[in-house]
Amino acid sequence: MPQVHDYIRDGAAIYARSFATIRAEARLARFTPEEERVAVRVIHASGMTDIAEEIRFTPGAALAGRAALLAGRAILCDSQMVAHGITRARLPADNPILCTLQDPEVPELARRIGNTRSAAAVELWGERLEGAVVAIGNAPTALFHLLELIAAGAPRPALVIGMAVGFVGAAESKEALAASGLPAIIVPGRRGGSAMAVAAINALASERE
Amino acid sequence: MPQVHDYIRDGAAIYARSFATIRAEARLARFTPEEERVAVRVIHASGMTDIAEEIRFTPGAALAGRAALLAGRAILCDSQMVAHGITRARLPADNPILCTLQDPEVPELARRIGNTRSAAAVELWGERLEGAVVAIGNAPTALFHLLELIAAGAPRPALVIGMAVGFVGAAESKEALAASGLPAIIVPGRRGGSAMAVAAINALASERE
Repeated sequence: MPQVHDYIRDGAAIYARSFATIRAEARLARFTPEEERVAVRVIHASGMTDIAEEIRFTPGAALAGRAALLAGRAILCDSQMVAHGITRARLPADNPILCTLQDPEVPELARRIGNTRSAAAVELWGERLEGAVVAIGNAPTALFHLLELIAAGAPRPALVIGMAVGFVGAAESKEALAASGLPAIIVPGRRGGSAMAVAAINALASERE
Repeated sequence: MPQVHDYIRDGAAIYARSFATIRAEARLARFTPEEERVAVRVIHASGMTDIAEEIRFTPGAALAGRAALLAGRAILCDSQMVAHGITRARLPADNPILCTLQDPEVPELARRIGNTRSAAAVELWGERLEGAVVAIGNAPTALFHLLELIAAGAPRPALVIGMAVGFVGAAESKEALAASGLPAIIVPGRRGGSAMAVAAINALASERE
């Protein structure tokens, strides 16, 4: 076969050069080591170094997320893309990964609570929220409703990754998360997405790069 | 339960307002109607209106992708996130969605061809490439190797969605796609990702917004 194109074909070398490029270009000095690993992977997943100036960590949030994963806590995801993007081999305790969006009771539950299916799916997390790592990479309504459930007495997760994306409610839901007092990692504004949320989980899951 | 937060809880209203915001803010005048639907959804998935100025369509590419989906052609994906993000209910012909990255022969094949697992997975698409819609939302090496396989005589897809992301090879692989003569939809440079690739497929799958 003709090797028409000149490119790096070694996966480990690609990762190493990618992370070196990010560390050379992005402004990472304000981060703790754990935060830096998260920021680098979120930048890697998005191709945007300026995320380094935007991403916010509440104090201790990255450590709390890492500790929860080491303790075997569940990872609760708002979308199938997030659930399927997490690299299972990196998880330290074969952590359960849960996305309830396709559960058969979700459409009826959404009608009953007068909210989106993404929000209804969060209600099904139930007691598994206790000490869990929550990854919101898509739906602002899932994040808003999570905050409502916790305000009403639902168990508190160890960490909420707030990376809802888009033009209606994304910025506002992440502001509400920042104001909630919950340990959080947030990409504010309209940007976000499942790839960023996955990158944050993959960074917390292992110190290996 | 206290409704602490004031936000839109109706999924259809959220979509409508999102797309209206995008159409009010993004520069979409240069697009055909089919291209515009793709651009709007890619912007929606990324939270970034300036994608409108970057995204490229080869002439007729969006129509070719739509026709291939109507004809029941397969959707071949470079990552599980892309495969799991596509909204099956939007597909016009129950199109098969294929991601071969987790196939058991991939690691050995990657060693044999001296390339990444993402590139090796593309070799397994075989004859299913003929007239297919290819969605590359992650790996530059998958896109480079696809171009090599086609240059060596592999079947030609109807459309290649080139949205590989990152710092090593992403920009270059998408430039190579643009130069290949294949029908293509491309987000150039470092930006891209599985959410954008999924959005393009979902836009081509149905005219419904």
